[in-house]
Amino acid sequence: MELDFIQKLVKPAGTKIVLLVMDGLGGIPRESDGLTELEAANTPNLDMLAKKGICGLQQPVGPGITPGSGPGHLGVFGYNPVKYQVGRGVLAALGIGFDLQSDDIAARGNFCTIDENGNIMDRRAGRISTEENQELCSLLRNIKIPGVEIFVETVKEHRFLIVLRGEKLSGDLTDTDPQEVGRKPLQPKGLTTESEKTVKLIEQFLEQTRNILADHHPANMVLLRGFSEKPNWPTYEEVFGIKSAAIAAYPMYRGVAKLIGMNVLETGATIEEEFSTLEDNWNDSDFFYLHVKKTDSAGEDGDFDRKVSIIEKTDKEIPRLLDLNPDVIIVTGDHSTPSLMKAHSWHPVPALLYSKNCRPDKVDSFGERACITGGLGPRFPAVDMIPLALANAKRIEKFGA
Amino acid sequence: MELDFIQKLVKPAGTKIVLLVMDGLGGIPRESDGLTELEAANTPNLDMLAKKGICGLQQPVGPGITPGSGPGHLGVFGYNPVKYQVGRGVLAALGIGFDLQSDDIAARGNFCTIDENGNIMDRRAGRISTEENQELCSLLRNIKIPGVEIFVETVKEHRFLIVLRGEKLSGDLTDTDPQEVGRKPLQPKGLTTESEKTVKLIEQFLEQTRNILADHHPANMVLLRGFSEKPNWPTYEEVFGIKSAAIAAYPMYRGVAKLIGMNVLETGATIEEEFSTLEDNWNDSDFFYLHVKKTDSAGEDGDFDRKVSIIEKTDKEIPRLLDLNPDVIIVTGDHSTPSLMKAHSWHPVPALLYSKNCRPDKVDSFGERACITGGLGPRFPAVDMIPLALANAKRIEKFGA
Repeated sequence: MELDFIQKLVKPAGTKIVLLVMDGLGGIPRESDGLTELEAANTPNLDMLAKKGICGLQQPVGPGITPGSGPGHLGVFGYNPVKYQVGRGVLAALGIGFDLQSDDIAARGNFCTIDENGNIMDRRAGRISTEENQELCSLLRNIKIPGVEIFVETVKEHRFLIVLRGEKLSGDLTDTDPQEVGRKPLQPKGLTTESEKTVKLIEQFLEQTRNILADHHPANMVLLRGFSEKPNWPTYEEVFGIKSAAIAAYPMYRGVAKLIGMNVLETGATIEEEFSTLEDNWNDSDFFYLHVKKTDSAGEDGDFDRKVSIIEKTDKEIPRLLDLNPDVIIVTGDHSTPSLMKAHSWHPVPALLYSKNCRPDKVDSFGERACITGGLGPRFPAVDMIPLALANAKRIEKFGA
Repeated sequence: MELDFIQKLVKPAGTKIVLLVMDGLGGIPRESDGLTELEAANTPNLDMLAKKGICGLQQPVGPGITPGSGPGHLGVFGYNPVKYQVGRGVLAALGIGFDLQSDDIAARGNFCTIDENGNIMDRRAGRISTEENQELCSLLRNIKIPGVEIFVETVKEHRFLIVLRGEKLSGDLTDTDPQEVGRKPLQPKGLTTESEKTVKLIEQFLEQTRNILADHHPANMVLLRGFSEKPNWPTYEEVFGIKSAAIAAYPMYRGVAKLIGMNVLETGATIEEEFSTLEDNWNDSDFFYLHVKKTDSAGEDGDFDRKVSIIEKTDKEIPRLLDLNPDVIIVTGDHSTPSLMKAHSWHPVPALLYSKNCRPDKVDSFGERACITGGLGPRFPAVDMIPLALANAKRIEKFGA
């Protein structure tokens, strides 16, 4: 369903919803006993929620699609990630917690190596260290161009972020990265008349950059791509009529939450601290997104047992959540990260919705295979979850007489 | 998901996918023991694939829609059959293996009976024999019109195919078949200015046809409908980035595969021969569609036991397929053809996906009722299968960072 349809039906209520996202929650079975991380974990509290609630497996983007963290979260937040796409520059800004303003233009940069003829020899400058990157970025910060403020920020290794702040800028221009070696970096081209000014600014930036970096082989040039502006999307409050807060320690997730107008709370980074933040702010919002990062990190590291233990740690905090007496709880992930694959994957993600108003199914434990026969379905669109949560929270009006 | 979304995410890989389509696979239970054909069949190999893989029931077109062979196959191939529609003329050409060129205009023809006033008495000319049809078609081949090449080909009984080949032709014109008796055949009308030339050519063809057939009661006139051109669809290679080959003995299926750019292989017609074709061509493509026709023919004939035995015959060839070590296997049908109905039906079609990267469900045999609780879902869109196969074959990139 489109957001503008939901938007017309939402109504206020004194109810509270908690969305607990365990990053990369889903897995695939290990050989020894045929269990996934979630199935192997001892999770009495999540099992109780599954038993009293309604379960299923959701697809954040679509069948066969492996979501990045941004699209995965947008899907879970109820925003169709195919429709609501973010540029690479904006994602880079979100990832390092750069406070992007409305009219800023962001691009993702790579330090690269060019030869004496200006042809690209290495698109990643031999993956220089993050420390070298920081030194080079501080050199590039010396570039001054009248009428625009320029930010250059280290991301990691050869990657950095550039942001232009000024009037009448536009992100509608082409990449300078030709995506292959042996060629010169491309000149940026404006895709609309609005972007002419930005193209000239970038040309000047690149010219000065080339001079500044000339003696800094292997990082003697840069490639820019994914010019983009902070999207102007409808906020959670506008669409769902609910005051929302985000509890997430990592910049990327704080950034995505900010994009849709969530109030991003200051929080400690451990799971216990995040639940404390929830308790401390309980009276101030009606919707809480709480993000557990380390399930994904363990999956990416291929550490099955560590992923199990983080799931179990999260399970132990559930009683604190129940003590707050929320009207609706959703527990899910933004994608699967099977330890066996050491990467994000396309496999659908376990999901449970608990509410005194839901119609329970027969699922009595929270796990991938148990959820297949749940009432939410074995491969349902992630965007369905928020409307269902709002309904269970009595926040959606009857449609039609 | 739209094809252009998938298209941006596909990436190359050295992996191989086999799509085994048993035509009309799905059935409904017979009274004696409550089993369908697939449930009654002894299929140890398919059951093993179901147990190790993920199962479900797919809808080729949509809920309640009984697919023809064309739309059924397009759905299974990943092309939404509601969006990718083929004209009746093109379908007739595919059905008899006519090698339609890019700018050809094809129409489906009926021999019909008109009275002395020119009013239609029988839209099917008493269903004349195929032999009579062939004689009449050879008479119509004498029609010569300057600037255009005309092909007239027998389909079956009263049905034939007409194809115009020439420059600046268009299929945008209306049928001459009024779809009722007691009225005159309609004059074709152009729907766009591009079709004016074609309208005149068809008028001339119909005038000459009327003279030629005048003494051939009951087949003394023709009705034409479904003027259409070979569609210009994105090919498998363009959309899915994979080199594909089709192994199918019947013209209709070879034709549909050709429409989406599959390399249609020469093959013997028996199931064993088709699997030999697969073995012989294994190194030359990365995607193989293998079509078993006779499950459908048996269903259409209402021969439950014969359909069972063809399913069992196919099952016996599965070890040959496994010996090739494909990365992904899909087994399904293009629609259901329950023997009890002697016809295609709308019932969802059993489907299994087997891959070492899939997350198995609890289904341990391949049958209609077993598949209901499978991880793919009990009524999922057929077009989901190819993206899922590509994901399991590691041929889809992560979406977003």
